[in-house]
Amino acid sequence: MGLEEATRLEPLGDGRFGIDLDTDFAIMGNRPNGGYLLTSLGRAAVAAAGAHPFVVAAGVQYGSSPGLGPAVITTEVHRVGRTASQVTASIGAVRAQCTLGSLHDESTPYWGAVEPPSMTPLGDIELSPRPGMPDNGVRMAFDPASGLQWTDDGLVQSEAQGELRAWFHFADGRPVTPLDLLYVVDCLPPATFTILSTGWVPTLDLSVYVRAVPAPGPLRIRFRVQVIQDGFADEVCEVWDSSDRLVAQSTQLAALRMPEG
Amino acid sequence: MGLEEATRLEPLGDGRFGIDLDTDFAIMGNRPNGGYLLTSLGRAAVAAAGAHPFVVAAGVQYGSSPGLGPAVITTEVHRVGRTASQVTASIGAVRAQCTLGSLHDESTPYWGAVEPPSMTPLGDIELSPRPGMPDNGVRMAFDPASGLQWTDDGLVQSEAQGELRAWFHFADGRPVTPLDLLYVVDCLPPATFTILSTGWVPTLDLSVYVRAVPAPGPLRIRFRVQVIQDGFADEVCEVWDSSDRLVAQSTQLAALRMPEG
Repeated sequence: MGLEEATRLEPLGDGRFGIDLDTDFAIMGNRPNGGYLLTSLGRAAVAAAGAHPFVVAAGVQYGSSPGLGPAVITTEVHRVGRTASQVTASIGAVRAQCTLGSLHDESTPYWGAVEPPSMTPLGDIELSPRPGMPDNGVRMAFDPASGLQWTDDGLVQSEAQGELRAWFHFADGRPVTPLDLLYVVDCLPPATFTILSTGWVPTLDLSVYVRAVPAPGPLRIRFRVQVIQDGFADEVCEVWDSSDRLVAQSTQLAALRMPEG
Repeated sequence: MGLEEATRLEPLGDGRFGIDLDTDFAIMGNRPNGGYLLTSLGRAAVAAAGAHPFVVAAGVQYGSSPGLGPAVITTEVHRVGRTASQVTASIGAVRAQCTLGSLHDESTPYWGAVEPPSMTPLGDIELSPRPGMPDNGVRMAFDPASGLQWTDDGLVQSEAQGELRAWFHFADGRPVTPLDLLYVVDCLPPATFTILSTGWVPTLDLSVYVRAVPAPGPLRIRFRVQVIQDGFADEVCEVWDSSDRLVAQSTQLAALRMPEG
């Protein structure tokens, strides 16, 4: 099942929405992926406010994740403004403060830039589904010069540390929307896996900004660790479209259990 | 009045705290500074959970700011855990999702680093109170090689664009605590002022990570714009202590009214 179908909402009234959290977006076997939850919450926030088409910023605090299957999203609309609206959306113990706004096709930077990284081009590597997992319509190609590789043996660490890079698109050719970017910024394995094999790495706090409507074509994702210190790691994710525009960016703080010594 | 005194809380029961929002931390004449509000919210979150000493992450959504004077902070403790606790703290339409944890003195990076910028040294420039404003115990020295200067005429733009750098300490020599860092990451003027004179720049979403207990001595702050596009700007703030450790980092998304044409 694809992301759009897997985030379909049933309005229940009073700002509540039913959703069926799909196994095709599960991680660790039985929990919904964090970016999948955030996309669902963002979609509910937009529907609840009924004022702006896109989530432009979201701050998420992850408590214990809900299980797969039917669940209810609750929303609270704090403010509907001309430039932006503010909505809190929650599912189980996952709470997202969403700022909604408008974005225009083919916008260009007025000032500044974050340049896309140099990456192994498509053609040399192939977009493919996740090996050994259900097909959820997502196609990715990990840059072999970065820190992790999907192989037939699963996820394998390479020599490069601290940074993952990947190409991304949907198998059916559907353009990636601003809402989908809430999934894209959190779809890679933890970048800390390139440094430490720590088992599960709980994200405590995630912040996402959606900056532009992606141009058609595959996206590039860079996900990197900045500093691991005192049991916490911060990771930065950036996404570019085929016209080299930064379309989304995120930061997150994760708790790490450090090896002894 | 200093920051510690200006964020003094009176417990009112049921997770509520009284505070007197002080004019010495006002901006634009009659509104409390955003970082001052966040420090107050963080202090309330720590008191409400009673489990961990510090706010290690906070995601803030700024609605209309409360006025100065007596106000009430409400808190909701979502989870008290071994590694981290989660609390939402609100004052007026300003809501902070706080993650609380522990930090150890003199921690060192296990992996990675964000190097401090080269700055004009103290001695060549002087830490001073904000000219023409009430003395709130904060002392700063703007790096003259960066984008803005305090002068007797107020805030003056220099030729450098997109980045502000400043030294910071408290006049009374009190060490800057992890809680104070919630103020430090948001105490500079908008970095967009070095590019556009747009008047008021409302922060929509702010995310802060506190990474270490600062060593004694003045801090260095770098506050920079990354991309201005389609009516929004993202700004990154980083803070280093006297031992060159990254002690805090933040990102924010602000709405900008762009000049015509």
